[in-house]
Amino acid sequence: MGEAAFEHRLRVRYAECDPQGVVFNAHYLAFADHALTELWRELFGGYAAMLERGVDVVVAEAHVRFRGPARFDEELRIAVAVAHLGTTSMTLRNEITRAGDGAPVAEVEVRYVWVERATGAKTPVPEWARGPLSRMRSA
Amino acid sequence: MGEAAFEHRLRVRYAECDPQGVVFNAHYLAFADHALTELWRELFGGYAAMLERGVDVVVAEAHVRFRGPARFDEELRIAVAVAHLGTTSMTLRNEITRAGDGAPVAEVEVRYVWVERATGAKTPVPEWARGPLSRMRSA
Amino acid sequence: MGEAAFEHRLRVRYAECDPQGVVFNAHYLAFADHALTELWRELFGGYAAMLERGVDVVVAEAHVRFRGPARFDEELRIAVAVAHLGTTSMTLRNEITRAGDGAPVAEVEVRYVWVERATGAKTPVPEWARGPLSRMRSA
Amino acid sequence: MGEAAFEHRLRVRYAECDPQGVVFNAHYLAFADHALTELWRELFGGYAAMLERGVDVVVAEAHVRFRGPARFDEELRIAVAVAHLGTTSMTLRNEITRAGDGAPVAEVEVRYVWVERATGAKTPVPEWARGPLSRMRSA
Repeated sequence: MGEAAFEHRLRVRYAECDPQGVVFNAHYLAFADHALTELWRELFGGYAAMLERGVDVVVAEAHVRFRGPARFDEELRIAVAVAHLGTTSMTLRNEITRAGDGAPVAEVEVRYVWVERATGAKTPVPEWARGPLSRMRSA
Repeated sequence: MGEAAFEHRLRVRYAECDPQGVVFNAHYLAFADHALTELWRELFGGYAAMLERGVDVVVAEAHVRFRGPARFDEELRIAVAVAHLGTTSMTLRNEITRAGDGAPVAEVEVRYVWVERATGAKTPVPEWARGPLSRMRSA
Repeated sequence: MGEAAFEHRLRVRYAECDPQGVVFNAHYLAFADHALTELWRELFGGYAAMLERGVDVVVAEAHVRFRGPARFDEELRIAVAVAHLGTTSMTLRNEITRAGDGAPVAEVEVRYVWVERATGAKTPVPEWARGPLSRMRSA
Repeated sequence: MGEAAFEHRLRVRYAECDPQGVVFNAHYLAFADHALTELWRELFGGYAAMLERGVDVVVAEAHVRFRGPARFDEELRIAVAVAHLGTTSMTLRNEITRAGDGAPVAEVEVRYVWVERATGAKTPVPEWARGPLSRMRSA
């Protein structure tokens, strides 16, 4: 993970844990979504600011590798990097570790497609977004 | 619970259970919402059919009494009755029991307000809805 | 809300909002649970610290009044006060407002019962908890 | 999808849909979990029956391809097949389509690892499970 990565931290909530006492697997996709929200705030002034520019991003594909359990009230660190920046799509890689000891928890790769908000049609990554995203590309 | 009550059944999902091994409390409000969806299908042909008539219902108040635990993969029975039918609001009472042995699980009372879909302004319960709802009033 | 209230802030997540564009009603019970977790950290050193002392709290009853919508990415302020402190139970009142302008969002009152962790049987509020909770009683 | 596939149906719940009006992406992993629960009921008499035999399955990896939106109150069909059956792991492929018109919604591949329940250590797929799972292998 290069120095360009963005970091978001969150605490595991009770309702996110299942009877095995660990975060239920589906929530890792939600965690990646929370990290995207915070990344957008950092890069573009927030998700709403992107929508106001007439574009949106939709999830096309996601891949999760589960490395180790995360439990209630543990703080997690999500390091986000741009793994791929294409013409109309981008792939973000989220490395999720336990903040306390750095223990690996999960890797979540999500491929997003940029769309026109009005029509839902694919659209090239806008220039105002391409620059900041390029600088986050992982080495 | 009078004979007029509507019944919906659902199975507890793994992701709805917490580290105590029981349904996390917030999900009971969601269960009441699922029951409303099925009640609307029965009475009015579905939620979308109501929206097409230009009205919607929004939750104003909810009260949950927790009677006993529900666990993963148990089937629950939700008996819905109309506890109150006012000018612009209505209160539905959901009695949630375990289908297998009838053990009490929770009671969820929800007060809904009818609104115009376009403006969000309160509106009287439409006549086409009032009749069927009246017949579901609990004794 | 007196000066003794505890405050927790959180940001509305995308997945918590429904097709009406607002926080789905059940999540307010989860928000009250998150606030409890943070309150326990402040008062007792965390939820796990309570469990290690052999007791737990379970939700017996909850009452939610919906005051106004909360939307994606808005920051919410949850002010928690002890509304009632009984022998084996306590009621916490959560006043949820929009952090930006103080607009009312919801009030969530939750009655908890203290139980022995091993048996699940009701138990008096322990002395080490009663003191800190008493000082949070709302005026 | 061969004839050996198992099928589970579910209806999209309101709380599963986001402000875009479609199922929030993380819920597809939960849908795969619901399908597993029902598959286990069909093959082995239920999830609890497996646990009683001293083993459990944990999710090691998941891959989701989003094909098209699913909306509130739509009925979805989840066709499950065994894509791979290894020594200690198995991969299930869930093809999710809209029940009404067969429109593709998502493909969810999940790789599970069998573990001893007491220790969490990897364990070979038990013989009592291998037979039924083999017969579900996709052509």
